Amino acid sequence: MTNPTPTRDAAEQLALDALHLSARPFPASTKVHKAGTLHPAVRVPHREITLGPTLEHVGGLTRATPNAPLRVYDTGGPYTDAAFVPDLRRGLPVVRSWLQPHPDLEALPEHSSAYTRALHEDGGPLVFPAARAPLRARPGRNVTQMHAARTGVVTPEMEFVAIRENLRQQAAFTDRHAHAGAGFPGLPQASIPREVTPEFVRQEVARGRAVIPASINHPELEPMIIGRNFRTKVNANIGNSAVTSSVAEEVEKMVWATRWGADTVMDLSTGRHIHRTREWILRNSAVPIGTVPIYQALEKVGGVAEDLTWALYRDTLIEQAEQGVDYFTVHAGVRLAHLPLTARRRTGIVSRGGSILAKWCLAHHRENFLYTHFEEICEIMAAYDVTFSLGDGLRPGSVEDANDAAQFAELDTLGELTAVAWRHDVQTMIEGPGHVPLHLLQENMARQFAVCQEAPFYTLGPLTTDVAPGYDHITSAIGAAVIGWMGTAMLCYVTPKEHLGLPDREDVREGVVAYRVAAHAADLAKGVPGAQDRDNALSRARFEFRWEDQFNLSLDPERARSFHDATLPAEAAKTAHFCSMCGPHFCSMKLSHELRGADVLAGLEAKAQEFREFGSALYLNAPDLNAPDLNAADLSAPERP
Amino acid sequence: MTNPTPTRDAAEQLALDALHLSARPFPASTKVHKAGTLHPAVRVPHREITLGPTLEHVGGLTRATPNAPLRVYDTGGPYTDAAFVPDLRRGLPVVRSWLQPHPDLEALPEHSSAYTRALHEDGGPLVFPAARAPLRARPGRNVTQMHAARTGVVTPEMEFVAIRENLRQQAAFTDRHAHAGAGFPGLPQASIPREVTPEFVRQEVARGRAVIPASINHPELEPMIIGRNFRTKVNANIGNSAVTSSVAEEVEKMVWATRWGADTVMDLSTGRHIHRTREWILRNSAVPIGTVPIYQALEKVGGVAEDLTWALYRDTLIEQAEQGVDYFTVHAGVRLAHLPLTARRRTGIVSRGGSILAKWCLAHHRENFLYTHFEEICEIMAAYDVTFSLGDGLRPGSVEDANDAAQFAELDTLGELTAVAWRHDVQTMIEGPGHVPLHLLQENMARQFAVCQEAPFYTLGPLTTDVAPGYDHITSAIGAAVIGWMGTAMLCYVTPKEHLGLPDREDVREGVVAYRVAAHAADLAKGVPGAQDRDNALSRARFEFRWEDQFNLSLDPERARSFHDATLPAEAAKTAHFCSMCGPHFCSMKLSHELRGADVLAGLEAKAQEFREFGSALYLNAPDLNAPDLNAADLSAPERP
Repeated sequence: MTNPTPTRDAAEQLALDALHLSARPFPASTKVHKAGTLHPAVRVPHREITLGPTLEHVGGLTRATPNAPLRVYDTGGPYTDAAFVPDLRRGLPVVRSWLQPHPDLEALPEHSSAYTRALHEDGGPLVFPAARAPLRARPGRNVTQMHAARTGVVTPEMEFVAIRENLRQQAAFTDRHAHAGAGFPGLPQASIPREVTPEFVRQEVARGRAVIPASINHPELEPMIIGRNFRTKVNANIGNSAVTSSVAEEVEKMVWATRWGADTVMDLSTGRHIHRTREWILRNSAVPIGTVPIYQALEKVGGVAEDLTWALYRDTLIEQAEQGVDYFTVHAGVRLAHLPLTARRRTGIVSRGGSILAKWCLAHHRENFLYTHFEEICEIMAAYDVTFSLGDGLRPGSVEDANDAAQFAELDTLGELTAVAWRHDVQTMIEGPGHVPLHLLQENMARQFAVCQEAPFYTLGPLTTDVAPGYDHITSAIGAAVIGWMGTAMLCYVTPKEHLGLPDREDVREGVVAYRVAAHAADLAKGVPGAQDRDNALSRARFEFRWEDQFNLSLDPERARSFHDATLPAEAAKTAHFCSMCGPHFCSMKLSHELRGADVLAGLEAKAQEFREFGSALYLNAPDLNAPDLNAADLSAPERP
Repeated sequence: MTNPTPTRDAAEQLALDALHLSARPFPASTKVHKAGTLHPAVRVPHREITLGPTLEHVGGLTRATPNAPLRVYDTGGPYTDAAFVPDLRRGLPVVRSWLQPHPDLEALPEHSSAYTRALHEDGGPLVFPAARAPLRARPGRNVTQMHAARTGVVTPEMEFVAIRENLRQQAAFTDRHAHAGAGFPGLPQASIPREVTPEFVRQEVARGRAVIPASINHPELEPMIIGRNFRTKVNANIGNSAVTSSVAEEVEKMVWATRWGADTVMDLSTGRHIHRTREWILRNSAVPIGTVPIYQALEKVGGVAEDLTWALYRDTLIEQAEQGVDYFTVHAGVRLAHLPLTARRRTGIVSRGGSILAKWCLAHHRENFLYTHFEEICEIMAAYDVTFSLGDGLRPGSVEDANDAAQFAELDTLGELTAVAWRHDVQTMIEGPGHVPLHLLQENMARQFAVCQEAPFYTLGPLTTDVAPGYDHITSAIGAAVIGWMGTAMLCYVTPKEHLGLPDREDVREGVVAYRVAAHAADLAKGVPGAQDRDNALSRARFEFRWEDQFNLSLDPERARSFHDATLPAEAAKTAHFCSMCGPHFCSMKLSHELRGADVLAGLEAKAQEFREFGSALYLNAPDLNAPDLNAADLSAPERP
């Protein structure tokens, strides 16, 4: 690796940019915390959205009825807390205070990775100033959440995620006004509890149906859970490439992505300063960070895939684990024997990691070294509680290649590797496609459930068509919502720039919000308790023309407001009983309100009673003269003179 | 109605705007026409996209293999034809030359609508200069496509749409490389033929499972078909409201919407100059135009719903039918007896037409006059071949209200009205929701199939969540794709401005393309023959780094190109084997190509043979020493020194 002329400017600039851009609360929102009961050190953040009162105009009087605030799941970390003053050079405060001291962990006097040690000696620019000593499991100990779960221990992380998921404060409300969920026809049903308890979390982690990606070296993390019986999660990819973008931009992209709702972030950097970029990201991230270690390994051998070695890769895993990466994509399912199955594909191998390993395998005519060393990798994962994200290196890159033999051969292998990882009590999720048309999604989910025993599925989209570059956040949000409904636990976002270039800030926002939409659509379908509360609150605000509440309750308050204000910027329009879409005379909601005036409503109630008694009958075939207010005169001349 | 100071400026400006903005071909595209055989006057346009050659570099040589052009369905009308010089003041040329003379039609000496006659006498601004005499069926004749179909006649329109739908020029290609479609689990399957023949079209129209909205007064129309066994169609709504936008803007929006893929356009104008705006739109539209006549009727009574009368509404229907409106939304299913069912809804009645009629019904305590006069409406529809779009005035406006008693009571009524319309041989489609979460879509489709006997379903979205104003093109594209797969025949778009304001040009483009994505995703799932050809061609271009072809094949070539060029603007990047997303060293497609070099590919073929013989076995539980290139040495030290 070559470094540019050393300068402090870059680091300085980095802190500055981020301070300006994303560290601010959402409008009308406050950060609230709820403490654990099993673990008092646990302090779980939610966002509470304050709502305006409902105004009723009766005669000349206006009656104001207050509305309770709505509490929502919050991925934004301290950055959206008004009380928080960010300082990127110090990093975020420690959330998981229980990690140190911890009976099964030891602080290492120096990094175990030779690469890290050499880099530290080198010095150079962009060094993160507030480094900590790395932690590792004491010899013979297993510190994974899965190991704890299987030995019956409810960890602080488990209580944290239970409180975090469990948003049913308005339980009575929820019960009355929410639809029951329903599984996708023909697939095994979810087992979503009415209330998420720490014990439920423990059970799900123990049986491998959920993961809590939480490296012991990432104490800044606000723990979260990924599993089909929890809220559907969203991952955002960031990372520079050799062509463009700086360290500062990448850190800011992480903060930005979590602001809009990314539950985890993958740093896919492939250019210069991979190690240092990652350090800045991790120390400032409240969400789990995932990586694909083979990318950095390839940089270390100058981009020559054939020169990759297990020793080098192993050192890279340890390097990253000691920085605090929470999950690793490992393409151990790209077996040599599967490669011939890709020979006649429309688009070959489209996973970067997959193609790197394929190249290695073919150059050496040997089995993938990630596969042959998989047990050793498990041992490293267990020592730091890094979660596997078993990569789908042979995922389809086009509609034509969907559900082909290469893809499913790899999935079968991932199922076998899941069983191995679970023998080590290593948390595991499974990556999935890719490009898959709607009607082929079900087979993906069914096979994944079967061969991976419901280990969390983590899909890229899927994109349901190839024909819309520039709109692939939409082609894929469609697939993501449907496969989320089917049972996929985390959806990896796709931005509008997919296939065309590196996403910028606005692309990241578009991608994340599109995926929050998909995830929420999936949660409504799955029937996640409390999920519909936000829809109900927003629709009620809409019906009552509480425009400010409507903006504030939306996934992107800024955009909702600016779109409204594009045509009606005046402050008075924020309480107007119409918008520019239909204008004042054609606002159906306004008309609906007029229909609900006290007299009309009383009349409707009486009619409802009649209706129940007489039912509705068809005039045209057989006029029903008993029907309320329909008589023979209506048939010829219902209009007023 | 009050007119502003008369001036020619507005009309002048109108022609000018449109000339500048949208009348241009797509890049690398030419308009091609195919003539009918049953009806030689039929001339069906398609768009043909020219592709660059596939370049192979072998040794020092480059071999170029030409690629056949791809022919695609084209909604753009003459505006995307390089040979066409638009003149909005003259209108588009006549396509349906067979309408005049026609044995069953007569040209009227004057308009039948009293309102139209009065308006013509008034003069005033914005008069369309090139008016034609209106046509009407001769007394006793029925000129609907359905009537013709039922009497065994294959009309020119039927042959037109058969040729238009039938894009299987690359049949051999299609057969080999496309997935078979599959219906949504649990719903009645589609009956999509391998080839769309004029006779198949006739059968589908005869049994009411498809409609060809084609008013006899809209000769500029390029006929199209809406039905579950054809390509999924998209409607775009345009129209000014009292708050904003001009006539010129609306005409331009129509041209613009069809450019991006709108199959039909609804003019929902509610402000001034409704009649004249519509005239300009119709005379310049090659796609079917739909309206909601009750909007104009309400304008005529100064916005006082109670003052609406059947006579007034009837005159409005005739006024619009003689202008050439192709389909009318008629909210005849909003029965008085259904209204009590809306009393406890989260968001009341959200259809503008529905709320107007509800207000009328309640004010008079009488049955909806559209319902009581439905047979007379049918007679008008038959005289001009206007197609019914039976409005869903009680559609849900929030997730909570989805699939409620009010919605389904109305749907049942629409089913009964469909049977009545069909007795008059009047073509009929059924409008559907609205706000419906994913898992409740199936019930909508199942009930619609059952009670409306597969009359084409035409849904607004549906929006799968309420929480994302500003992104409702996405919340709804998700629902649209899924319900399209289920069997909905036309998807009414939703723009990003939905619920917030009147869409502008860019919103229309965003909305239309999002819905083209949804419709195409549905077509792939349904297995529409030839649909996947475009995906395959684009993915092949992608894999071969034919960037120009990739842009040109996409739904929005301009956006694809500009997104790519945002980071790599140089001309050389258009043939580069990477983009800024991953950079040159990490491009998986580039790596895939290297893997396919002649030697490697030969090796893969041999491996494929071995693989089929030995199968894949799991190393970790039981190392398979027969597996190709896996031996004991690999297990311990697979890396090179």
